[in-house]
Amino acid sequence: MADPAFFKKAGEFALGEIAQKTGATLVPAGDDSAKKIIRDVAPLSVAGPETLSFLDNLKYREDFLKTNAGACFVTPEMAKVAPAGLTCLVSPSPYKAYAQTAQLFYPETLPKAEISERAWIHPLAKIGEHCVIEAGACVEEGAQIGNDCWIEHGAVIGRNVRVGNHCRIGTNASVSHAYLGDHVRLYPGVRVGQDGFGFAIDPTGHVKVPQLGRVVIGDHVEIGANTTIDRGAGPDTVIGSGTWIDNLVQIGHNVEIGRGCIIVAQVGISGSTKIDDFVAIGGQVGVAGHLKIGKGARIGAQAGVMRDVPPGEEQLGSPAYPSRHYFRQIAALNRLIQKKKGV
Amino acid sequence: MADPAFFKKAGEFALGEIAQKTGATLVPAGDDSAKKIIRDVAPLSVAGPETLSFLDNLKYREDFLKTNAGACFVTPEMAKVAPAGLTCLVSPSPYKAYAQTAQLFYPETLPKAEISERAWIHPLAKIGEHCVIEAGACVEEGAQIGNDCWIEHGAVIGRNVRVGNHCRIGTNASVSHAYLGDHVRLYPGVRVGQDGFGFAIDPTGHVKVPQLGRVVIGDHVEIGANTTIDRGAGPDTVIGSGTWIDNLVQIGHNVEIGRGCIIVAQVGISGSTKIDDFVAIGGQVGVAGHLKIGKGARIGAQAGVMRDVPPGEEQLGSPAYPSRHYFRQIAALNRLIQKKKGV
Amino acid sequence: MADPAFFKKAGEFALGEIAQKTGATLVPAGDDSAKKIIRDVAPLSVAGPETLSFLDNLKYREDFLKTNAGACFVTPEMAKVAPAGLTCLVSPSPYKAYAQTAQLFYPETLPKAEISERAWIHPLAKIGEHCVIEAGACVEEGAQIGNDCWIEHGAVIGRNVRVGNHCRIGTNASVSHAYLGDHVRLYPGVRVGQDGFGFAIDPTGHVKVPQLGRVVIGDHVEIGANTTIDRGAGPDTVIGSGTWIDNLVQIGHNVEIGRGCIIVAQVGISGSTKIDDFVAIGGQVGVAGHLKIGKGARIGAQAGVMRDVPPGEEQLGSPAYPSRHYFRQIAALNRLIQKKKGV
Repeated sequence: MADPAFFKKAGEFALGEIAQKTGATLVPAGDDSAKKIIRDVAPLSVAGPETLSFLDNLKYREDFLKTNAGACFVTPEMAKVAPAGLTCLVSPSPYKAYAQTAQLFYPETLPKAEISERAWIHPLAKIGEHCVIEAGACVEEGAQIGNDCWIEHGAVIGRNVRVGNHCRIGTNASVSHAYLGDHVRLYPGVRVGQDGFGFAIDPTGHVKVPQLGRVVIGDHVEIGANTTIDRGAGPDTVIGSGTWIDNLVQIGHNVEIGRGCIIVAQVGISGSTKIDDFVAIGGQVGVAGHLKIGKGARIGAQAGVMRDVPPGEEQLGSPAYPSRHYFRQIAALNRLIQKKKGV
Repeated sequence: MADPAFFKKAGEFALGEIAQKTGATLVPAGDDSAKKIIRDVAPLSVAGPETLSFLDNLKYREDFLKTNAGACFVTPEMAKVAPAGLTCLVSPSPYKAYAQTAQLFYPETLPKAEISERAWIHPLAKIGEHCVIEAGACVEEGAQIGNDCWIEHGAVIGRNVRVGNHCRIGTNASVSHAYLGDHVRLYPGVRVGQDGFGFAIDPTGHVKVPQLGRVVIGDHVEIGANTTIDRGAGPDTVIGSGTWIDNLVQIGHNVEIGRGCIIVAQVGISGSTKIDDFVAIGGQVGVAGHLKIGKGARIGAQAGVMRDVPPGEEQLGSPAYPSRHYFRQIAALNRLIQKKKGV
Repeated sequence: MADPAFFKKAGEFALGEIAQKTGATLVPAGDDSAKKIIRDVAPLSVAGPETLSFLDNLKYREDFLKTNAGACFVTPEMAKVAPAGLTCLVSPSPYKAYAQTAQLFYPETLPKAEISERAWIHPLAKIGEHCVIEAGACVEEGAQIGNDCWIEHGAVIGRNVRVGNHCRIGTNASVSHAYLGDHVRLYPGVRVGQDGFGFAIDPTGHVKVPQLGRVVIGDHVEIGANTTIDRGAGPDTVIGSGTWIDNLVQIGHNVEIGRGCIIVAQVGISGSTKIDDFVAIGGQVGVAGHLKIGKGARIGAQAGVMRDVPPGEEQLGSPAYPSRHYFRQIAALNRLIQKKKGV
């Protein structure tokens, strides 16, 4: 069970209600299944008889076969091999259904609305309704914060920045020169809106290029801890709605990222690159500047992307190649070694 | 036009004055060009008839040929193909000239000098003239801040640290055990002066080696958001004047970096490595410890440098090789695949 | 000598006492050596006649042969070539012995216990004895801080977090949903306990998976500046006792790291991977999710680990292979180029 020191459970739910809310089918069907009370959610290996779990990654198949869980979200295929006594909630997307259910048990809630006397808020800042602004937070002149926002300890909202509704700005994060949509969440230590890395190289001293753009962030965007997003040099840096960015990512100036993208930890996107919708980029990938990454492209971890990537293509390696090409490179290299040994 | 919520324009300027300040030549020459009034700067694709732009990267050649800009910094070669009606400012370094002009339109200015009552300043700290110290900033015992400095919200200046004149310490940045020159700028979340990663490995518990050096930073240095620079273990960690460091870079203890270097985002430099003047290091490069990187060397993105690099050499790859060698490796690998297919 | 602005020396010591405390053997033996007074520690290249140094890395052999140091920790082998007049402290682990001695000269001391009026501490937080809590620090409701802890400027301890004794939480670091052991040190800007990167991918909007685990950190753990450690999704994220983590490292949710591990800067460990005791991971390594890294394994810098690693194995490269295999790959590639040239 989730540690009550940190997590508050909203209640318990009948499997029928859960199935209905998630669009899952109960197997076996019938009232016995539908009326079964579920008191918590947990991973397969620790779930007990009144707990709901999920199987998404087949690496955890053994956990599934031995689980004590009372119920489990599974694909139709895996439902067939479920252990006796386990009620299955069959779904084409078990992990999504589990996510929705876990939100039901542990909804995110805002603390009681309160603006701490130990926060520093400029008299010309505008704060929406039902906001929490914690001690040590600073909100600068002209900044506008929407309704139901949570500005955590030590977070700093810069001059004239606009933050939409239902946003959460994490501990010690900072935002300047930026417009944020609704339901945007910045994790602790995020840096949004500082100058991009722009200068003209010169032997007598590099000459700074004033960075005159902004950062524009859509709705439902999450940005991970200590990630840095520079503002544009002239154009804006843009993060599309529904895009999720992990920790310690670097987004250079003028980068445009589309909708629904997923960018894993420690990725670096160089300046002026445009990334279309629903692109997925693995951890520690580097993308050179001024490129175009097509819609739905997938870049594997640690790849180094030096050229445009067509829509839907999967690439791997540094320098990055289409994945089939990459696997052939690795195979060829390993054959070479075998040959040498064989001599 | 730059968003007036964030940027304040200093005025408008005649092309003749701009040409004079940047050393550019007007084409066509004559009073019509020289008296033309320019009201702003902008990228080619969005510049209008009273706006000045630049062409530096030939990727943007099409934007140049179709631009509505009133004037444009270009190389002599590109001036020959300029569209009709565009006044060219011909320069051997158009990007530098643009940078100087953009600074003219949008000069960096310090907010009104003021030490916030909500900053915490030790009575034995010394603060220079005309400084801005914002709410939430902390300045420790014995610290010395020069004139015209800007210490942003939540920034922390440690005990006995010295900061030169015209420095800007970004939001929530921290500095300890360090001496900073003039015109040093730390972006938000920068960490300067914490202990290096020094310990003797031991199965009964690694033994910490006290880190007894400092960080010494020259003049006109910029250090990007959330970058970390550890202090020396005995010798100092040194960052030379005019060096620019991007976001999320790691500089280990005892590292010495020369003058005018450029270090792109997410680079890691291991302990005790010495980097000579005017070295350029691409994004996500790793440099092993105790190496020497010669003057003017250039290391390509994602390279892994395991050996000393001679002056002026360009290296690529992991492990890094001279670039010609690296390109041959890639070509050889790709030929192998072709052969296999051909069989 | 270490800069007295930043470091306070505890005294001077006779070589005999130092030899005793570190288990080293004096060469030459006898009272002349044992009574020699040492006033400081320093690297070989700058050490003077009353200073003690060490030789650990043979790269610094020349410094050793020319040193003016009065005494030096060395291996038995190097003691044989010591320059005349140098007293050797012979030890199987000279660096460890040096570390212990440097701690003798420069012990870490807590500032005078004091809770700043400018810190923000919730009335229901519990603070141990002899703690230092600096201006700008925040300690939330229900948090428990042990004895002899140092909470630096701007550090934030979240709701119900427990911090053991003798811990130091660095400037602007943040901790939530976590239990820390004794002698834990978080460097500036560390982020512990934020949500892991957990969501179900969905074209209509990725669905967040509530992150219901914690971060559990053992004793004597050091975590470097701006490193990020996400809390578990259901299980906990665990960092074993005696593990040292460098700057800008990313530890994903549910990761378990054993005892005595060393993780160098900018490493990324993906979710649910288990790392056994005494594993060493070089800089910028990426480890995929759901893997097992065996006890004592060593992963070289920039490697990309995609499969389980057996205990004790050394791996290199991206994708990672056992080091012998990796070196053969590089050699084979370089032979290919030679052949091509030879044609």
